[in-house]
Amino acid sequence: MRVVIPYTDRNPKSRLAPVLSAAERRAFARAMLGDVVEAVRSAGHDPELLLPAPIDIADADADTTVGVDGVPTTVDDRALTPAVDAVLDRLGEGVAEVGIVMADLPLATPTALRRLTAVGGEVGIAPGRGGGTNALVVRDPSFSVDYHGASYRDHREAAAAAGLSVGVVDSMRLATDVDEPADLAEVLLHGDGRAHEWLVDAGIELDAAGGRVGIRRK
Amino acid sequence: MRVVIPYTDRNPKSRLAPVLSAAERRAFARAMLGDVVEAVRSAGHDPELLLPAPIDIADADADTTVGVDGVPTTVDDRALTPAVDAVLDRLGEGVAEVGIVMADLPLATPTALRRLTAVGGEVGIAPGRGGGTNALVVRDPSFSVDYHGASYRDHREAAAAAGLSVGVVDSMRLATDVDEPADLAEVLLHGDGRAHEWLVDAGIELDAAGGRVGIRRK
Repeated sequence: MRVVIPYTDRNPKSRLAPVLSAAERRAFARAMLGDVVEAVRSAGHDPELLLPAPIDIADADADTTVGVDGVPTTVDDRALTPAVDAVLDRLGEGVAEVGIVMADLPLATPTALRRLTAVGGEVGIAPGRGGGTNALVVRDPSFSVDYHGASYRDHREAAAAAGLSVGVVDSMRLATDVDEPADLAEVLLHGDGRAHEWLVDAGIELDAAGGRVGIRRK
Repeated sequence: MRVVIPYTDRNPKSRLAPVLSAAERRAFARAMLGDVVEAVRSAGHDPELLLPAPIDIADADADTTVGVDGVPTTVDDRALTPAVDAVLDRLGEGVAEVGIVMADLPLATPTALRRLTAVGGEVGIAPGRGGGTNALVVRDPSFSVDYHGASYRDHREAAAAAGLSVGVVDSMRLATDVDEPADLAEVLLHGDGRAHEWLVDAGIELDAAGGRVGIRRK
């Protein structure tokens, strides 16, 4: 299955500003992207980047292997929702199914992604924490996305309104999109890829003093 | 499998104080407990309550059906860790396996619990958000618990040190323990049991204004 991964280099992960600089957030976002691309490949699927503007991965990160070399890229300068809807238009052109997986899921494993792509329904959804839609598999051209607000609920309602069946994947790994400092603890606890390594190298470590484990910087 | 559910009526869910009164927190905690007991039963397992002191469910909640009538109860006034370790002592007495499932997992479904009890390893773990241990299946008497701090990491390390194999369940539903106001959004989004109904009745609703969906009270 073609799995499209939307990604932007424009001020990525702004809510991590309390702990990471703008340059660090970009490097960390690219590390997460590399993890997602690798997980998609290892799951036996074909990753594709969806970008608002071309980026030169090789130049910007000459010191690290982002792991997206040779990945097909689609450039669409519109917002996320219309850009993904344009991808879904392929379903009316002979493509049977397409996956949409966010780039900030560094805990995604091949096993978790296989559970997503194996889920039944004309629309398969992996909900994100806080009501987001972290990953989708769409098998019907009448479905369209709306990533604004509580998109998980909205996508379920839109599918129901269109008479489409929905499958939901119960995965902590796919539910964990990394947006806020507390999310970094999840990467430290459960990750083992580029994003995990990047955080360790940056001196981010677990802080087990509170009720839930947080992070602190050395 | 006997599945032991630790629960306390002593100031439960104190971190929900910004949105719920003490009496409300107790009622909500009991609603969550009822959801967990029902999910364990529906998964084909035998729930058991582990309490620090006897509680009179029927009297205190005459207006609601908590759903724990007839559930076997063990009273142990020690802290969570030694009380659970005492339960694990049964493994040296002819019991092959025992489950420990926290009472604040209102999104737990029979399917998710079956995935937990089917996971391989001498220790099966469902990690909670922020490094906790939300559910365990233990099949070896040499394992003991320590619920303080980053218990998921500690439990894995303790199992490895004892030469025990570990299975991990990747479940958003089992990872979602409800401790903080933001967690209530997950119950509103994904729940359909007593805890969900309690929140709706209390006027707690989704607030989709922010980056992630939060909650507000009418």
